[in-house]
Amino acid sequence: MTDIGTSAQRVIGDLRELAALTSTADGAQRLAWGPVWRDARAWFAGKVAALGLSVETDSAGNNWVTLPGASSKTVIVGSHLDSVPNGGWLDGSLGVLAALEALRVRAANDRPPVTLKLADWADEEGARFGRSLVGSSAAAGSLKVDEVRGLKDAEGRRLADVLADNGVALETILNAHRELKAIDARAYLELHIEQGPVLESMQKAAAVVIGTRGVERHKVRFTGQTAHLATPIPMRRDAFLAAAELALECREIARVHSHPGADVFCTVGIVDVEPKIATAVPGVCEISLDQRAMDAGVLAAMHRDAREASDRCARENGVGVEWKPLWRIDPRPFDPQLLRLCEDAIREETGDAPAMPSGALHDAAEMAPHMPAVMMFAYSSRGLSHCKEEDTPEPFLASTIRAYLRLVDKTVAHVAQI
Amino acid sequence: MTDIGTSAQRVIGDLRELAALTSTADGAQRLAWGPVWRDARAWFAGKVAALGLSVETDSAGNNWVTLPGASSKTVIVGSHLDSVPNGGWLDGSLGVLAALEALRVRAANDRPPVTLKLADWADEEGARFGRSLVGSSAAAGSLKVDEVRGLKDAEGRRLADVLADNGVALETILNAHRELKAIDARAYLELHIEQGPVLESMQKAAAVVIGTRGVERHKVRFTGQTAHLATPIPMRRDAFLAAAELALECREIARVHSHPGADVFCTVGIVDVEPKIATAVPGVCEISLDQRAMDAGVLAAMHRDAREASDRCARENGVGVEWKPLWRIDPRPFDPQLLRLCEDAIREETGDAPAMPSGALHDAAEMAPHMPAVMMFAYSSRGLSHCKEEDTPEPFLASTIRAYLRLVDKTVAHVAQI
Repeated sequence: MTDIGTSAQRVIGDLRELAALTSTADGAQRLAWGPVWRDARAWFAGKVAALGLSVETDSAGNNWVTLPGASSKTVIVGSHLDSVPNGGWLDGSLGVLAALEALRVRAANDRPPVTLKLADWADEEGARFGRSLVGSSAAAGSLKVDEVRGLKDAEGRRLADVLADNGVALETILNAHRELKAIDARAYLELHIEQGPVLESMQKAAAVVIGTRGVERHKVRFTGQTAHLATPIPMRRDAFLAAAELALECREIARVHSHPGADVFCTVGIVDVEPKIATAVPGVCEISLDQRAMDAGVLAAMHRDAREASDRCARENGVGVEWKPLWRIDPRPFDPQLLRLCEDAIREETGDAPAMPSGALHDAAEMAPHMPAVMMFAYSSRGLSHCKEEDTPEPFLASTIRAYLRLVDKTVAHVAQI
Repeated sequence: MTDIGTSAQRVIGDLRELAALTSTADGAQRLAWGPVWRDARAWFAGKVAALGLSVETDSAGNNWVTLPGASSKTVIVGSHLDSVPNGGWLDGSLGVLAALEALRVRAANDRPPVTLKLADWADEEGARFGRSLVGSSAAAGSLKVDEVRGLKDAEGRRLADVLADNGVALETILNAHRELKAIDARAYLELHIEQGPVLESMQKAAAVVIGTRGVERHKVRFTGQTAHLATPIPMRRDAFLAAAELALECREIARVHSHPGADVFCTVGIVDVEPKIATAVPGVCEISLDQRAMDAGVLAAMHRDAREASDRCARENGVGVEWKPLWRIDPRPFDPQLLRLCEDAIREETGDAPAMPSGALHDAAEMAPHMPAVMMFAYSSRGLSHCKEEDTPEPFLASTIRAYLRLVDKTVAHVAQI
């Protein structure tokens, strides 16, 4: 039913317009809860108004656009408009503006057989307060208010105050869950850039996302003894070298647990040594360790292996080790029926439909426990994301948008029949 | 000639008095060029005045006290009063106050056969501007004024301005070299706490220091590609893991080059990753690498091995590597005749005279090219230094001070005869 050739060009035009409005030379600046993000949402509301529709905001600051259908059965299409500082033009925005196009092509026509709702989730990135998926987790009811109450940004401002500035009361944020449950939701569809180099390595435009990997994210703190560098090596208790050994061992653990089509991730992104001077053996080293796998058993085994390795690295370096959980989430496999529709949509558009788990978390992971959900990935040049270089070559971008609009068509038809 | 029993108690009393005057609950606060350091020097000048002597300051801010002898031939005894922030009560002060005692025991008596000069070197620690041995290297003529001109402290104040506040003109600081050369110096003696655990492991009070190890200190910067953690491990260019491999390899290189009585050091004290977030593969990792050996050939081999290892670690992780020299100094072996006198002094006092190279640099390393020099080390509890826990158990401290005063006696007698 959709003229998807024209549609894809319209989505790309919208993306470029938004990027021009909300970027500096360093990239996108749509940091959640800030003025540029609000500008982006105001611009988006104008696009919605042009369709004769309006934006409603739920108790968590998520924006919703409803296109009523013949049935209350609802297909939710969504993603997020917020970006990291110096971010890319596609992360989040692609999914929101492709979803807008799915509403646009239907808004001028007869009432569709089912209701469509667009969700623009608030603060997917968590770039300011370190807690991602704020809006969608509130809607999902999984946000622990007590755990985020104390969060502050780099300037020391409290999350609760910044949310209040944006009309969101932290104490009632979980009302968004009741509001979501009131929707007769039958499917959640999200298009997102891959943020990794797998599609590029295959030279494929789009992929079916089979689910989001589970995450074990911890701080691992080694405590030895700060010492002057005149301490003989056998007498040292060097916390950094213990951490270096663990980081390398964890990469090996990930290699052992990776299999074709089911690779796992392991990332040490933060490293802090103390006292951090050239003439002192580090007495303390703290690292972040983020392990991810699609299979819950594999994730548990990786985590257990890493704990054992940390004990061994600590013992062999004469230091102590402590683990502090930062975040964990179970793997979230997507819905089998929607996976098939997604695969059909991509194959019809591109001739082939690779499938992969998502390494990154997405709002879809919060929706998956509550309704059938699926995601589609777009090619990500050089795998780069969260930076101004983030890109999808235009032919790949256009064909992925077309595939996504096909998926919406198929899902609407499917939901109408169930 | 010295009543060294009473003398040792007097030195310890002085040390405790200075510590009480210039420490907080966090340790010594005699940061060079600052108010507490000036207080320490004013207190010291009072002690000197009580002997009927006076303090003179050279062009580099080093303080000198002269006890004229029958001959212009001079024995220099010295160390430094400055400390790191939150430092210990013995590092530097022990050598200055033991040297003061060497003058004190002679000041009341007949003119000694040779001249004694006490040197209180300015800014040995380099804790504020990152350049150690400022005063002694100026006196040695090895300070490169152009290399330090741009140095700033953490508050952004320039070295030149801070020196000027203390009466030292950076442009004429090297006049201190001419001033040193005007002295008919025949020996330089320095007592210092070991700052390592070797004497403790042997349960010996004091050691002959055979020289200061040579140093190769560099920044090693690995540059890969910052990437979202959803990047498969084989496709990553992780700068941190390359640095972790190098740090561990360099420890192995040090182990290979260490031999009993001639161990070498290798320390990675600074580690910086970018962008330093839990969800990103580090695209940049910069570490400090400090390698030390007493033998120049061994030091060169260690450095060459580390360079080769860094190339291999970079290649195997798909990243680039750059080295930036921070500091290097040749090994400085001490004078054979003074080593024998030092050995005799320690053996007479303690029954045994272990010998070791110094891992840390000391002002004595700057004097060694210009005159016969030697150092003596005092036992360092748990090897801890540059912290408030720095200590020498009092019986060990007293016997080391006695051994040092014996060394001064022997050196005065030796110089008088040459």
